[in-house]
Amino acid sequence: MRISAVLGFLFLGLQALAQNTQVDYESIYKIKDEGFNNSQVMDIAWNLTDRIGPRLTGSEGLKKAYDWTSQMYKDWGLTNVKVEAWGDFGPGWEVDKNYLAMTVPYYQAMIAIPKAWTPGTGKEITAEVVYVEVNTEEDLAKYKGNLKGKVVLMPTTINAENGYEADARRYTEEELEGLTKVTVRGGGGGGNFSASRMSEFRRASNLRRAAYTMLKEEGVAMILNTSRGGGQGTFFTSNGSRNDDSALPEMEMAPEHYNRMVRLLQKGEKVMVEAETKTRFLKNDTKGYNVLGEIQGSDAKLKNEVVMLGAHLDSWFAGTGATDNAAGSAVMMEAMRILKESGVKLRRTVRIALWSGEEQGIFGSRNYAQNTFMTDKKPNAAHQNFSAYYNMDNGTGAIRGIYLQGNEATKGLFEEWFKPFHDIGASTITVNNTGGTDHLAFDGIGLPGFQFIQDPIAYSTRTHHTNMDVFEALEEVDLKKNAVIIAALVMQTANMDAKMPRKPKEF
Amino acid sequence: MRISAVLGFLFLGLQALAQNTQVDYESIYKIKDEGFNNSQVMDIAWNLTDRIGPRLTGSEGLKKAYDWTSQMYKDWGLTNVKVEAWGDFGPGWEVDKNYLAMTVPYYQAMIAIPKAWTPGTGKEITAEVVYVEVNTEEDLAKYKGNLKGKVVLMPTTINAENGYEADARRYTEEELEGLTKVTVRGGGGGGNFSASRMSEFRRASNLRRAAYTMLKEEGVAMILNTSRGGGQGTFFTSNGSRNDDSALPEMEMAPEHYNRMVRLLQKGEKVMVEAETKTRFLKNDTKGYNVLGEIQGSDAKLKNEVVMLGAHLDSWFAGTGATDNAAGSAVMMEAMRILKESGVKLRRTVRIALWSGEEQGIFGSRNYAQNTFMTDKKPNAAHQNFSAYYNMDNGTGAIRGIYLQGNEATKGLFEEWFKPFHDIGASTITVNNTGGTDHLAFDGIGLPGFQFIQDPIAYSTRTHHTNMDVFEALEEVDLKKNAVIIAALVMQTANMDAKMPRKPKEF
Repeated sequence: MRISAVLGFLFLGLQALAQNTQVDYESIYKIKDEGFNNSQVMDIAWNLTDRIGPRLTGSEGLKKAYDWTSQMYKDWGLTNVKVEAWGDFGPGWEVDKNYLAMTVPYYQAMIAIPKAWTPGTGKEITAEVVYVEVNTEEDLAKYKGNLKGKVVLMPTTINAENGYEADARRYTEEELEGLTKVTVRGGGGGGNFSASRMSEFRRASNLRRAAYTMLKEEGVAMILNTSRGGGQGTFFTSNGSRNDDSALPEMEMAPEHYNRMVRLLQKGEKVMVEAETKTRFLKNDTKGYNVLGEIQGSDAKLKNEVVMLGAHLDSWFAGTGATDNAAGSAVMMEAMRILKESGVKLRRTVRIALWSGEEQGIFGSRNYAQNTFMTDKKPNAAHQNFSAYYNMDNGTGAIRGIYLQGNEATKGLFEEWFKPFHDIGASTITVNNTGGTDHLAFDGIGLPGFQFIQDPIAYSTRTHHTNMDVFEALEEVDLKKNAVIIAALVMQTANMDAKMPRKPKEF
Repeated sequence: MRISAVLGFLFLGLQALAQNTQVDYESIYKIKDEGFNNSQVMDIAWNLTDRIGPRLTGSEGLKKAYDWTSQMYKDWGLTNVKVEAWGDFGPGWEVDKNYLAMTVPYYQAMIAIPKAWTPGTGKEITAEVVYVEVNTEEDLAKYKGNLKGKVVLMPTTINAENGYEADARRYTEEELEGLTKVTVRGGGGGGNFSASRMSEFRRASNLRRAAYTMLKEEGVAMILNTSRGGGQGTFFTSNGSRNDDSALPEMEMAPEHYNRMVRLLQKGEKVMVEAETKTRFLKNDTKGYNVLGEIQGSDAKLKNEVVMLGAHLDSWFAGTGATDNAAGSAVMMEAMRILKESGVKLRRTVRIALWSGEEQGIFGSRNYAQNTFMTDKKPNAAHQNFSAYYNMDNGTGAIRGIYLQGNEATKGLFEEWFKPFHDIGASTITVNNTGGTDHLAFDGIGLPGFQFIQDPIAYSTRTHHTNMDVFEALEEVDLKKNAVIIAALVMQTANMDAKMPRKPKEF
């Protein structure tokens, strides 16, 4: 090793020490001890899933979750505990009855659930099933006058083949290495949709709208749908036209049961179903809420500065929202409990937020960020006093590293802070972005917001938004690891001399 | 090569020629042409699954399958087409309504189906769920007087974890090689159950019976169960106490939904369900039937001798019995169609049988074998005139070879006859046995009965006896291959000078 390199290392080491950014091994030890030996993460996750159940935004389930999580905050001694409204979400919705069976050519119950925010059939109906294949607006005409009281299948091509690949997996070292490579795009806007593709989207969207209008005018009894992936009894949930009392009853089905009816109808067989669905719109309180709590900072000069951690508490409703996102909520609650219980020093104030409305558009965190850090569309004092936000929303998998969202100035910090976790598989720091969830609410207003690289497990293949996103899908060891890692990162961030570096961004 | 070896080969070749056991490539060509270019196997399988549906022995579905398959035989020009009673099976059974939902602590519909041959609840019931844990007869006492009108969970430990292995797979060359190795057991009866294990079985069985009697006396509303494997919306079907009108209503459930209630009850939460199941016993015709048809042999001297091929037509009822065993039935029907349509020479008479009652104890084939080949418990003339039986009942997977059931004298024949199929992956000849299905009916009375080595695909992991044993689970290319291979083997067997060699066995 050359002497200049040695000096360079010494200098970096001293610099880190000076800024108080080096690993605080004493606190890490306490965090690991509490998180690995007295973990409550599975008990928290169990309460959110099995006991409280599905937590669709605005639902009774989510209201129970607001109450229970805020009570846990209080039990643990957090301060400033608030179930805080972030704005108007619209009516909540509950399923009270959910039954669908094919009755002709033979009886068999089918795996299905009403689409979110659609009305039920009210009473039990028996109806013929019609396959409505609409490729152009002209096709609508041939169904006119023939669909009253019918149950309609809208064409969807969904395969549900034998699975020659495992549902669940972990990242390989090669894949993790690949995630650290930043893709530099060439010119020409290759990443954008072409004009012809946009026009095709518009055409398809208009056609769907015209078809739906026709089905309503006809007075069909119900629409049946299936959606991507899953299979073998798993199906993905989606929502109908939200807030529309006058919508048609719709159900989402297991692809095999849907496909069977399609094949029968295409071969000219008569198909009948019976169905009874009851749903209920909750209009008493249409606001959405976030659940907040704090550990006050110990440093008089820094306690008005804030480090946040969070995850969305709301879920889809066909399962119990285990990996999306009881996992993240339980890990963040457990990280907060570890920080409190282990008694590690926290110079800045640490705040947890459990968001709602994430699944419908990242509403809870975006509104919170706007309400809290912006005044008259300009960054305010809270914006100035904010350090960083950590988010978990990639399922149950172990944290393998972190996405920096392009914030390269933080790279050296995270390289240092992940060192105590290399031996449990977490060491990948990537400048790359990841999207789709609540850290974007912070990133979008120029605040450091981070989301983790997590092992995929069965998130995209089996659990994400499905009826099988249930307690069994949670990996206990992974959730324990994640709570410890996040508690450690929050502790390190809270104790730096400086706030987390920000990306240069103009407002 | 030594000269004696060359002479040996020549001699074997001449011997094969003399006995007419060599590969008939001209007929194989015709069989391949018909089976690969004009295949109807998927259409047959579709009719048996999607269109006719579940085919539980004695059910309306199986009666439809008797009618349709025998009509197909006639359409193809088979002779001696018969739907032949093999004896008394007992009442059939149908599900007319199938609904279960948890209502407390929150509403969620559950994936479940009545256990076969159990009565329904009749009307919609709402009931508290009780977890009855009985480890000794003394445990029964503590539930006494507390279970009237309750829904009972009987303890079952079923995991439904994330799947890190693929559901579906094919045999590797190493595994196929392993199948050819015969295990020679040491002395000491190591393969038998120990006396203490037998005694434990008896104790557990007596305890189950005592518990069931107690539950009946208490007047519980329903028993809920789950069984092995599957998961993610797949569950295995089983039967209750068949032919017992006075049985309790029982349902079989998806393990995740069952486990959730168990966990809730174990943690002291109140659980309620609502359920409505209607089942119907069919007592008009309690006989079981097999569906038989023939192609008459062309050789005046040999046409009274018979080669048979078959598969069981009956299935479980939560899916549509696709891999168990519409696959085998469709392949055997298609093999028969190929033999007829291709017009290949068949010196002996070829007979197809589609069995019933296989799932309840190999009833159809065993009774047929006894009724046909035995008189006063002794082999009769039909026994003497029988050559061989080929069976398919290992799911949708491609044939990779054949089990000889210890009949070593046939090894040279099958080595020769599989040669045209080495290039589609079928070349493994094993002296080993395989059990569990209809070839045993023949093997058991000293007649050559064979079953094939097939790629496992998702048979034991996902489809065997499950609600997801449906059309999607069928592998089209595999079924085509299998029909061609079986048609070829039947042709070769029908055209030998001698009948198939038999194992030395005394009666």
